[in-house]
Amino acid sequence: MADRNVYFFEEGHLGMRALLGGKGANLAEMTKAGLPVPAGFTITTAACHDYFAENNTLSERLWEEIRQALDGLEARTGQWLGDRTQPLLVSVRSGAVASMPGMMDTILNLGLNDETVEALAAATGDERFAYDCYRRLIAMFGEVVLGLDAWRFERLMDQVKREQTCTEDQELSGAALRELAERFKAAVAEGAGRPFPQDVLEQLRLAVEAVFCSWNNPRAQVYRKVNRISDAQGTAVTIQRMAFGNKGEDCGTGVVFTRNPSTGEPGLYGEFLLNAQGEDVVAGVRTPQPIAGLRHLMPDVYTQLEKWCGQLEMRSGDMQDIEFTVERGELFLLQTRAGKRNAQAALRIAVDLVREGRIDREEAVRRVELPHLEQLLHRGIGDAGGVQALASGLPASPGAAIGMAVFDADTAESWSRDGRPVILIRPETTPDDIHGVLAAEGILTSRGGMTSHAAVVARGMGKPAVCGCEALEVDAAARRMTVRGAEEVVREGDWLTLDGGTGRVIAGQMPLREPAATPELLTMLRWADELRSLAVYANADTPADARKARSLGAQGIGLCRTEHMFFAPERLTVMQRMIAAETDAERESALAELLPMQQADFEGMFEAMDGLPVTIRLLDPPLHEFLPGREELQRKLDAAVPGSTERTQLQRMLRRSDALRETNPMLGQRGCRLGIMHPEIYRMQAEAVCLAARACAVRGIDVHAEIMVPLVGTAAELGLLRGEIEDTARRLLPPELLAARPVRIGTMIEVPRAALTAAQIAEHADFFSFGTNDLTQMTFGCSRDDAEGKFLARYVERKLLRDNPFQVLDADGVGQLIRMAAENGRAARGELKTGICGEHGGDRESIFFCHQIGLDYVSCSPYRIPMARIAAAQAALEHGPLTGSRTAVTV
Amino acid sequence: MADRNVYFFEEGHLGMRALLGGKGANLAEMTKAGLPVPAGFTITTAACHDYFAENNTLSERLWEEIRQALDGLEARTGQWLGDRTQPLLVSVRSGAVASMPGMMDTILNLGLNDETVEALAAATGDERFAYDCYRRLIAMFGEVVLGLDAWRFERLMDQVKREQTCTEDQELSGAALRELAERFKAAVAEGAGRPFPQDVLEQLRLAVEAVFCSWNNPRAQVYRKVNRISDAQGTAVTIQRMAFGNKGEDCGTGVVFTRNPSTGEPGLYGEFLLNAQGEDVVAGVRTPQPIAGLRHLMPDVYTQLEKWCGQLEMRSGDMQDIEFTVERGELFLLQTRAGKRNAQAALRIAVDLVREGRIDREEAVRRVELPHLEQLLHRGIGDAGGVQALASGLPASPGAAIGMAVFDADTAESWSRDGRPVILIRPETTPDDIHGVLAAEGILTSRGGMTSHAAVVARGMGKPAVCGCEALEVDAAARRMTVRGAEEVVREGDWLTLDGGTGRVIAGQMPLREPAATPELLTMLRWADELRSLAVYANADTPADARKARSLGAQGIGLCRTEHMFFAPERLTVMQRMIAAETDAERESALAELLPMQQADFEGMFEAMDGLPVTIRLLDPPLHEFLPGREELQRKLDAAVPGSTERTQLQRMLRRSDALRETNPMLGQRGCRLGIMHPEIYRMQAEAVCLAARACAVRGIDVHAEIMVPLVGTAAELGLLRGEIEDTARRLLPPELLAARPVRIGTMIEVPRAALTAAQIAEHADFFSFGTNDLTQMTFGCSRDDAEGKFLARYVERKLLRDNPFQVLDADGVGQLIRMAAENGRAARGELKTGICGEHGGDRESIFFCHQIGLDYVSCSPYRIPMARIAAAQAALEHGPLTGSRTAVTV
Repeated sequence: MADRNVYFFEEGHLGMRALLGGKGANLAEMTKAGLPVPAGFTITTAACHDYFAENNTLSERLWEEIRQALDGLEARTGQWLGDRTQPLLVSVRSGAVASMPGMMDTILNLGLNDETVEALAAATGDERFAYDCYRRLIAMFGEVVLGLDAWRFERLMDQVKREQTCTEDQELSGAALRELAERFKAAVAEGAGRPFPQDVLEQLRLAVEAVFCSWNNPRAQVYRKVNRISDAQGTAVTIQRMAFGNKGEDCGTGVVFTRNPSTGEPGLYGEFLLNAQGEDVVAGVRTPQPIAGLRHLMPDVYTQLEKWCGQLEMRSGDMQDIEFTVERGELFLLQTRAGKRNAQAALRIAVDLVREGRIDREEAVRRVELPHLEQLLHRGIGDAGGVQALASGLPASPGAAIGMAVFDADTAESWSRDGRPVILIRPETTPDDIHGVLAAEGILTSRGGMTSHAAVVARGMGKPAVCGCEALEVDAAARRMTVRGAEEVVREGDWLTLDGGTGRVIAGQMPLREPAATPELLTMLRWADELRSLAVYANADTPADARKARSLGAQGIGLCRTEHMFFAPERLTVMQRMIAAETDAERESALAELLPMQQADFEGMFEAMDGLPVTIRLLDPPLHEFLPGREELQRKLDAAVPGSTERTQLQRMLRRSDALRETNPMLGQRGCRLGIMHPEIYRMQAEAVCLAARACAVRGIDVHAEIMVPLVGTAAELGLLRGEIEDTARRLLPPELLAARPVRIGTMIEVPRAALTAAQIAEHADFFSFGTNDLTQMTFGCSRDDAEGKFLARYVERKLLRDNPFQVLDADGVGQLIRMAAENGRAARGELKTGICGEHGGDRESIFFCHQIGLDYVSCSPYRIPMARIAAAQAALEHGPLTGSRTAVTV
Repeated sequence: MADRNVYFFEEGHLGMRALLGGKGANLAEMTKAGLPVPAGFTITTAACHDYFAENNTLSERLWEEIRQALDGLEARTGQWLGDRTQPLLVSVRSGAVASMPGMMDTILNLGLNDETVEALAAATGDERFAYDCYRRLIAMFGEVVLGLDAWRFERLMDQVKREQTCTEDQELSGAALRELAERFKAAVAEGAGRPFPQDVLEQLRLAVEAVFCSWNNPRAQVYRKVNRISDAQGTAVTIQRMAFGNKGEDCGTGVVFTRNPSTGEPGLYGEFLLNAQGEDVVAGVRTPQPIAGLRHLMPDVYTQLEKWCGQLEMRSGDMQDIEFTVERGELFLLQTRAGKRNAQAALRIAVDLVREGRIDREEAVRRVELPHLEQLLHRGIGDAGGVQALASGLPASPGAAIGMAVFDADTAESWSRDGRPVILIRPETTPDDIHGVLAAEGILTSRGGMTSHAAVVARGMGKPAVCGCEALEVDAAARRMTVRGAEEVVREGDWLTLDGGTGRVIAGQMPLREPAATPELLTMLRWADELRSLAVYANADTPADARKARSLGAQGIGLCRTEHMFFAPERLTVMQRMIAAETDAERESALAELLPMQQADFEGMFEAMDGLPVTIRLLDPPLHEFLPGREELQRKLDAAVPGSTERTQLQRMLRRSDALRETNPMLGQRGCRLGIMHPEIYRMQAEAVCLAARACAVRGIDVHAEIMVPLVGTAAELGLLRGEIEDTARRLLPPELLAARPVRIGTMIEVPRAALTAAQIAEHADFFSFGTNDLTQMTFGCSRDDAEGKFLARYVERKLLRDNPFQVLDADGVGQLIRMAAENGRAARGELKTGICGEHGGDRESIFFCHQIGLDYVSCSPYRIPMARIAAAQAALEHGPLTGSRTAVTV
């Protein structure tokens, strides 16, 4: 136990936040600054720790300290707790280190009992006020300390108001409130099986314990989980002389923000209630007035408030959320804290504060909350409060979409051509559905995970998608879907709203919030770019995506998935012919058709990224992903005319499909294994890259082509393929071009063995790009598709995992491999460029990790680039910039 | 280039084997020992290296050295190469470091031309002899140096014999042989486009180059690959004065072994030919006589041979294979080397040599070749030389089996009951086929890999199996199978022979070789046990297997796969009911039925292993493996009576099967993930272990129960499950029993992340068992089922991988993880026991690796235990015993 567990406000300061909690530290600071704060003291978070450690027992020693502080408070105020002439009344309030507004408990007016209430009435000459305080205490104590339901007291209040034929609380007379206090006491005795304690010290002791315990109430636990606040911190408890806003019409209570929390506009913003105590504002019992009203009602108080608010903002360097009470025309400040704000306001406030010289750019960048950016950059559902979702699936691709339900790709395409927005709903999508995906506003599937075809394609296109929504039974043939266990039926043409950010599927059309790249956002991103050392690349598969990415600040393409280029319908047919080829000549002929298409793709990419690197990954997925499903093939085959060419082709595809079938496709013949078994495919791709580079160079475009070999597990694989690619480059590129702009060749590190043998692999690699999706799957031995909807969520819930490792990079396991590989790779080849692609490239914590281990870049989807730019700057601010000093880093 | 590249025999010794090759070093040793060896010298392997390094050019410097050595040889013999009165004739022979009998080339009688042949005839007075030598030289030179086909010469020989009306070569007269030499010369000129060289130095130079080049002939390459001999070594070349076995009836040539190479029986064993040169024996032109015949024909020579053979065996300490020539009654030894022998002989010889005091036990154990043990311990096909296999599949479970083809499990069972041996043939097996697998002699499937159901179950039972034999089209309904691209049809009842060791499927009944645990084998194993420090455990799933394992020397059970216990038909039904349960009550009731079955299994295991550890792995495979295939379920459902209970149950199973379907089952919900999501399953298993331990203890059995949690990826998983198992143990076991014989709890390390975080996991583990099968799959990102039949073989062929990593542990990647995990685990918990289970436990190289990194045990299938005992001893001999010094090991 610490030597000291209780501090008067004047003994503390802002730097004692960890011990005194946010509220306690702020009150100390305000007291120091001479602001009008009612006297009080704070019990530390360390005392709360001890309380939990002792099985929720308040030690005699701590109680003794509290008693002594109480003596001091009595001396300071000239009032005494339980005194029959000058009774001291106090508030007992929680105060966590991180702000958790409204999550924990508070008790006001503590110190009243049947005797002191009379003394208060006598001392103030206001029976009504005294019993108003008393009935409030009894109810609050009943709820917070004794765990009674609020309805017990509300019911009695309504009863008394009916008896008095009042509608508003403040119309009740002193006598009526006295009666109410009696009935409340009876309710406590009945509900709790014990009377409301008349011993004021017992009140205090129980209240302190109740506030400690409120740290662990369910809503506080949930709030901490959502906001990633440690469960270990505990709460401080502040005990403060009451200031009374309920003594009459020259009294009141309110909450102000120093700037508008919705827009960021400067100037006081808030509301107040005359003749009321704080909880009335919170509880919504009465409707408060806008703060501007106070200017007319109490001009002096308003001027004072404005001045002090300005002072508080100045001291803290941030927009403040301030509670105040006016007691008989005198203003008291009860609390100040950094105010919660929405995305747009947060940016505007930070930028304004820099411009006003209150904070520097570093601080402004440090304060950006990344979820805010996500709100700004994707369409979202404007206000879905209270709306019941039909079902929820996996949030497979962010953004919101509204459209009419359609159940096949052809309908999606034709309706969309007619100007009708559509949501494409399929049990799961296949490459054959691609034209429907292109046409749709959003995609909804009942099967498949975060890496299913639909999810991957939708994310690549920046199109909202909800996948693996298992509660839905999709009957594509009947053009309808039903929700399991419910009666709702969605038919073709019904309106639906999808929220790809949360996975919700909502019937009808919800209002949408459009993305907003405000000037403040652009300013902030510029500042971030000055601060960060980590480069930000994009994952983009088409020239349009590349242009989008560049406009959002991408410094290169870190991952261009060539397979997505094969999914367009006219190409898919050729690709399928290539796969089903039975002779070398047939295969070569299909590849010859694909070559100019790939070349055109690459030319577009190089043009869009003129002067910046474009990393092209050679074909990765297993070939069967390009074929229709077996059942569909069989169906088409049954329908084909006997003896027709189509039938022959279908038969071939079916045979090939059977031959390609794999038990664990994730671990099968894909990536460079394909490139080694079918060298003609990679050869065609390397030729297309080189021919595109040559054609672009002729047009004056500065091409930085990088070819990335996927799924390498051994140095020998990369060595072999590198040799073949180099041969192609020497064959197709003029020597002077090759010398000036060499085609760089590297690999994805996504197989654990590649990370373990990075030193050998680096001998053949110009760069490593960590494919953290697959690396996580293999390192955990956990298929994302199979795990995410099933046990992974439960694991996080049960704290067997801190985070879903597919969202936040697992530093201990996967991160250890990445760190080893980056270090050993660079040791073997000093100029090795390292980065990550995979969805972790857009996650803050993962970006911090990449910065710390000295990677050169992160690559993420275009829409996450702004977030990545900010996160990279924040990482540099937290851990120092690492440019040029990579090899000196010890992690 | 080395200073010296040529050594006379008398200048070398046995220690120069790397430089002189086996033959050269042995000839040097024999010369030193005063044995009758014709004079000669050896060109080193280093010179061969240089020859290849210089693009197959024989340097002038080397040629000069050879010329000088030739001068020396002429001085020693008093004969001169190319001399017209005393011509020197030499043999030019290859000599690799490792014995590669018959793989490379040899030229005899070099030095003859149209003039020296006359001189030889004059000097010996034997025209017949001289021209016999000459025609041999021309043909050999034509074949070896000029690359002509042997048939060119054989045809001419036949022609001349026909003309002379002879049947045997030695009946030909001098004149006939002179004519033959002429025709041979013409054949050379015609076939090679150049005449047979008359310049004897040119003959020599070309012969040396040809012998160098024969290192890379195709059969030598294949031999090296099969015998794991490095391609880099190169061959030495020995040039030696000819001794002539073809000078008449007092001459001859032969080969003897110092012991019988088939049985190991002591005493000369071999054969000889009168009036012949060495190649006649090898080529099979004439049928040689048993060596015993020499005793009567040339008693003195025989006595001498016997003496010298004994001396050679004594010096080398091993059974020798000796070439000799008798020239006019004088015995010459041309070569000695360790003799090839079969499995049984090898053991007998080694044991006899120890008993005779020639070698010590260490040396005897060191010499054991493990493939020999495999031959001894499984039935094999006795002599399949020349037999064409119907098809080849994966060698899924070793041993040979003969039976009649059946195509379903029920028929297999009923025929087997009738005493008819059967081979069960299925496209692939499922748990529903288990009674057929039990009844069959061997299993054959057309689909599925080395880890398919059939393969795993068959290996577990020690039953021969060939899997994934894709050339077969199995039509189970029509009760027949066809071979793709062939006309053969196998119908029910046809005899088949399977070789599970090679994957061959042969029509008809082949003779089988029975396994033989000879007394010599038992002696050798006893010696190995004295030498090794690595313990050998067994993977065994039934009490019968455990007893078998114990009889073969298992010191514990390292892996008991509890799931195999659920595959018996009466249990499978209960298991399926458990899986399809829709309420907790239903599931609990099914589990309550399974509990006594599991308990009985474990009691049997504990009883069989009384006093030794039994490691029980909790349920591992995904639940869908216990359900019939989807199509089968649908078929049964269609056939079920509407409204019947069976139908309801089938519907449930179908629904459950759909819900359990996974994209990558290897990476899905299995292992401890099941145990965490369905705690009742592991609870039942832990209860069964404890109840069995208690029941056994009462019967006086000394139980060492170890519970192994599979597929752990995080310390939290193991921590949670350990707690639950410990609770069960405390609940069910009397405290004094638990104190004396604690249930040890450990985990399989088979997920890369577990290896990476071993220090944390070790906090909850009493032991680590490396599951090298899955660890290899995940570290390589490579599904064995999908890879082994497809790209993996090609990878090994193309040297992208040295070995199939599922057969030989990949030391660089997977091994690195194992080493890290073992080190970090032991650092965190000193008493941590470590070992491997998985099939690498039976592989020599992998066992060496385990010994080197200081693991405590390897666990392998019962039939591989003898091999593992020997390999562990060999590892200790090579790397020193590591007992007790584990922590001092630096690897």
